[in-house]
Amino acid sequence: MQKLEQLYEGKAKKVFRTDDPELYIVDYKDDATAFNGLKKGTIAGKGVINNQMTNHLMRRIEKAGIPTHFVQELSERETLVKKVSIVPLEVIIRNLSAGSFAKRYGVEEGIVFDAPTIEFSYKNDELGDPLLNSYHALALKLATAEEIETIKKYAFAVNDILKAFWAECGVTLVDFKLEFGRLTDGTIVLADEISPDTCRLWDEKTHEKLDKDRFRRDLGGVEGAYAEVMQRLLAHDAD
Amino acid sequence: MQKLEQLYEGKAKKVFRTDDPELYIVDYKDDATAFNGLKKGTIAGKGVINNQMTNHLMRRIEKAGIPTHFVQELSERETLVKKVSIVPLEVIIRNLSAGSFAKRYGVEEGIVFDAPTIEFSYKNDELGDPLLNSYHALALKLATAEEIETIKKYAFAVNDILKAFWAECGVTLVDFKLEFGRLTDGTIVLADEISPDTCRLWDEKTHEKLDKDRFRRDLGGVEGAYAEVMQRLLAHDAD
Ligand SMILES: Nc1ncnc2c1ncn2[C@@H]1O[C@H](COP(=O)(O)OP(=O)(O)OP(=O)(O)O)[C@@H](O)[C@H]1O
Ligand SMILES: Nc1ncnc2c1ncn2[C@@H]1O[C@H](COP(=O)(O)OP(=O)(O)OP(=O)(O)O)[C@@H](O)[C@H]1O
Ligand SMILES: [Mg+2]
Ligand SMILES: [Mg+2]
Repeated sequence: MQKLEQLYEGKAKKVFRTDDPELYIVDYKDDATAFNGLKKGTIAGKGVINNQMTNHLMRRIEKAGIPTHFVQELSERETLVKKVSIVPLEVIIRNLSAGSFAKRYGVEEGIVFDAPTIEFSYKNDELGDPLLNSYHALALKLATAEEIETIKKYAFAVNDILKAFWAECGVTLVDFKLEFGRLTDGTIVLADEISPDTCRLWDEKTHEKLDKDRFRRDLGGVEGAYAEVMQRLLAHDAD
Repeated sequence: MQKLEQLYEGKAKKVFRTDDPELYIVDYKDDATAFNGLKKGTIAGKGVINNQMTNHLMRRIEKAGIPTHFVQELSERETLVKKVSIVPLEVIIRNLSAGSFAKRYGVEEGIVFDAPTIEFSYKNDELGDPLLNSYHALALKLATAEEIETIKKYAFAVNDILKAFWAECGVTLVDFKLEFGRLTDGTIVLADEISPDTCRLWDEKTHEKLDKDRFRRDLGGVEGAYAEVMQRLLAHDAD
């Protein structure tokens, strides 16, 4: 597999063309940003952890019958993925109140919901990724009704898988963001990453934050937190 | 029917108790506010128009089988309504892009949607009435799943009725906000008002704004616009 020219450099990853028109290589960086790019920094070793954690979780999700973009891990930081056209919706599932939810609706963090919530935001940095609902997504022609149904179904199923897995690691899955994409033939697959950059992960007992909120909120111990969740994932699999 | 003490003075109406514990009197003012109370003014004659227009439209809606709080018009500005406990959701239906939708999603005003959109915002002035979806409303226990289904069904039905009616008056119903309430026995009914304060109404041909946007955006001719839509409504019924 030939790594060809860089197509895109995002805030956390680079995307490269390959000699197969249907495959890309994703390269994970240590760069961290928050608040729509306003806060910038580096989390040493994050790229390696996010690459390996994403791949581990994508394999589990694929095994459970949900199609993903994952093809093969190429190196510590590089992964071969199916090329997709990203659906411009960030898909957020919440099991407990936290972050923008708590702030927007004036409630404390840590309220356990009776049922998970799903929400979409319009993936558009200029507009600040505004919240929208399925009716808005349809009106703006961001996806078809059928695609939205598929995405919702997959996202809730991913939540069931991840929640159960992290519980076995002593970690509470508070909320997370997913991105979906369309393969060349239109099939919807899970894409992008699943990592402490995109999930809120709390220690089950102490409620200690083991995710990017340590960076966002200057809580210190950022690298340690990423290493800790990765360690728990690997220990789970060594069992 | 005895008008007893004032229970609440809102930005546009006052609500009074009566000697019947299940009935309130609503009194429409000429006061106008915008941007969550930041802009204040008066629109002479608005209270009379909003009272009469609301009642006219509530009667039509009730006739079409959707329960409302309307009981009886008492005077130019006063109406007897069923007491409800307001569901803390502002229910917005949109047929065309305008206002906060256009701004939030970076599109021009006046795009005709293939299908109407519905959205909820959390009726909470301190939080600035933030947008939310049905999952959020459930998680925050603002309404039950059954109530939300009923509210959605009623809101779309109200849109069909109002869109058709205003079209017969040469007016395009762009979007509008509804509030629903629970009667003492829990029945969901349409409450509050339906007026140029709560609807965007455009002249079908010229697209001239005939609603509160004239006040919000300092377009002038505010009183004239309110009088014009009321006039068209009355002319329709005189036919
Ligand atoms: N399989 C894939 N095919 C094509 N693009 C992908 C795939 N998986 C992820 N992407 C996209 O690659 C980019 C990854 O870079 P990164 O996560 O650093 O972006 P970002 O800075 O978060 O910017 P964005 O706002 O676009 O997500 C994202 O735009 C993501 O949507
Ligand atoms: N049938 C009803 N029973 C009880 N309350 C009602 C009824 N119909 C409307 N209301 C409420 O009465 C108040 C009407 O006042 P007004 O519209 O001026 O309020 P407002 O300034 O818009 O404030 P709010 O943010 O509470 O709507 C609103 O709070 C509305 O929800
Ligand atoms: Mg990204
Ligand atoms: Mg009001």
